[in-house]
Amino acid sequence: MEVSANLPTARDKLLFTPGPLTTSLSVKQAMLHDAGSWHFEFNARVKRVRERILQLAGLSSAAGWEAILLQGSGTFGVESVFATCLPPDGKVAVLANGAYGERMVLMLQRLKIAHLALRTPENIPNDPVALDRALAADKTITHVAQVHCETTTGILNPINETGAVVRRYGRSYIVDAMSSFGALPVDITAAGIDYLVSSANKCIESVPGFSFVICRREVLLACEGYPRCLSLDLLDQLKGFEKNGQFRYTPPTHSILAFEQALKELEQEGGPVARSARYRQNQELLVRGMRELGFRLYLDPAVQSCIITSFHFPNQADFSFDEFYRRLSDKGFIIYPGKISQANTFRIGSIGRIFPSDIEALLSAIRIVLQEMEIL
Amino acid sequence: MEVSANLPTARDKLLFTPGPLTTSLSVKQAMLHDAGSWHFEFNARVKRVRERILQLAGLSSAAGWEAILLQGSGTFGVESVFATCLPPDGKVAVLANGAYGERMVLMLQRLKIAHLALRTPENIPNDPVALDRALAADKTITHVAQVHCETTTGILNPINETGAVVRRYGRSYIVDAMSSFGALPVDITAAGIDYLVSSANKCIESVPGFSFVICRREVLLACEGYPRCLSLDLLDQLKGFEKNGQFRYTPPTHSILAFEQALKELEQEGGPVARSARYRQNQELLVRGMRELGFRLYLDPAVQSCIITSFHFPNQADFSFDEFYRRLSDKGFIIYPGKISQANTFRIGSIGRIFPSDIEALLSAIRIVLQEMEIL
Repeated sequence: MEVSANLPTARDKLLFTPGPLTTSLSVKQAMLHDAGSWHFEFNARVKRVRERILQLAGLSSAAGWEAILLQGSGTFGVESVFATCLPPDGKVAVLANGAYGERMVLMLQRLKIAHLALRTPENIPNDPVALDRALAADKTITHVAQVHCETTTGILNPINETGAVVRRYGRSYIVDAMSSFGALPVDITAAGIDYLVSSANKCIESVPGFSFVICRREVLLACEGYPRCLSLDLLDQLKGFEKNGQFRYTPPTHSILAFEQALKELEQEGGPVARSARYRQNQELLVRGMRELGFRLYLDPAVQSCIITSFHFPNQADFSFDEFYRRLSDKGFIIYPGKISQANTFRIGSIGRIFPSDIEALLSAIRIVLQEMEIL
Repeated sequence: MEVSANLPTARDKLLFTPGPLTTSLSVKQAMLHDAGSWHFEFNARVKRVRERILQLAGLSSAAGWEAILLQGSGTFGVESVFATCLPPDGKVAVLANGAYGERMVLMLQRLKIAHLALRTPENIPNDPVALDRALAADKTITHVAQVHCETTTGILNPINETGAVVRRYGRSYIVDAMSSFGALPVDITAAGIDYLVSSANKCIESVPGFSFVICRREVLLACEGYPRCLSLDLLDQLKGFEKNGQFRYTPPTHSILAFEQALKELEQEGGPVARSARYRQNQELLVRGMRELGFRLYLDPAVQSCIITSFHFPNQADFSFDEFYRRLSDKGFIIYPGKISQANTFRIGSIGRIFPSDIEALLSAIRIVLQEMEIL
């Protein structure tokens, strides 16, 4: 098999996925440096990055908030919240309508934490009314967990409505905002979110390597004695930062240098408002073009995010997604491979260093591939 | 504070630490590409990397071995072995003579796995005879865990002798070879190692982002039902690679591209034999030069590794390590900050893209700093 992505002369294929994403060259070039992971200059950068994440969320450490970076992917960040913040007799209500909600259930099973799942079909947003009933019926539920943008389909879940219910019952609220933070508006205090988890390689448009958790300092400090795992011990991670500014264990230094640059570029673009406008433009162009090519959307546009979009397979009985995917890859376009939804759909992402002209190029390539496959 | 490492014109300070290390520019340049984390081309690279790690260890997947990559730092890799491979009634004997052995004890506490620690002083290697007695006395011990090169001091622990004892009792043997794999000779089958853990940013001289565990496929498959954590579930991680060639969760794609390049450069250098010869040359030069400057070694040379070396503080009562460190940093040399040993020592690493000429430059800088501080 030809593997060309590492040849200096080859242009990278464009990624239309929910991440890792196509990033700017300048973000990647920030990784051309080796930083001392315990060195005071690097610690100062980590501190600034943590504060800037809070600023992005409209929060600050002065107001009692913390952004805690954790090595690993976003999943590690979500599991660190469960592993650290659930008391021994805690119980989590998981609102699930896709693979990432189901992954939370799996985590709770492995961690042997009591839980129940409140499921809606993959094309229906989580139901705050069902949550209300569950919280009324089961006083032992201590935490509610939800995925903001479920990239299984691209559906947006109602965090403000859910948060209002959680607050009414005085429970804790955990939001996986992996694919939304940095672009979609999230008002953490208005939604009553206690723990928000996101990752470096999503809407901040940096490279993978770490996730981050935003929470109130006091709330986390109250979790003393709960942590079930050392690597994923979020409280100990915070204490490490506070003790000497360092990660407890080797940080992905290069990823953090890239992230610092990505934060600058997000600001240069005009912040989350401008970024989400570009993503919306990308997604609208994509949807219009795909419709013209005969594709149908899986989701109702009212619940569709601008992050990633699911399309039904064409009607041809013998449609081979694998062939479709590989032909697009040959032309330099990587859409999201694999299918995690129960429906016969495929997904195209509209985030990352991707502009409307890239969406137009993708649509042209899709048209040609459909002709090659004799579907058009 | 001046933070210059990210200015394109500034030369990076050289890192004399146990990692993250100074790496080659070509290793870092391999990160100037965005790979699709679920794309078949990337999957093929991951597969090759896994096989090459086994080759480095003198093993192969055909012979029943696996190298399983895991997101996060080396600590995540070590904890993944405990979290995945210990049966509910398992018990671990940890041989400890430094911070990394003690970290294993902490992991077992958090994971609520039965354990006992067999400690030797920081300057004394782990004691296989004490292990022999412990295994004879306590039949409930199922696993023995040990750090090969304990970078708290730089001491080398006797893995072959320990392995012989473990094998005699038919127990499982877990070795943290973080700082040794790729340079120091480790014969996994001769030492009877069941799980060897190392990381990308040590002697392979790549960037941080993931660890890897080498173990027998059959041994890991027998751990069904044990995993206590989803992110650190090594068995599920293996199943993911086998199902579709993918990481279960977002991999540090750029770190893996860098690692592939680092493996090539290790081969170009002449493999682990040549690399360890360079490290030994670095370390011998360092020790000779430091002795000339009046420093005394903390460890007996017989148990000293070529990875990192501990030196006693100078005799001056008012010696400020912080000032010493900062003055060296100002001259472009980062030694290992912080002190995790109980002794009044500091550490200098001799691994990474560091050559004898760099050690000479460091020694010159140390001489000048000592003069500035009126110690020489």
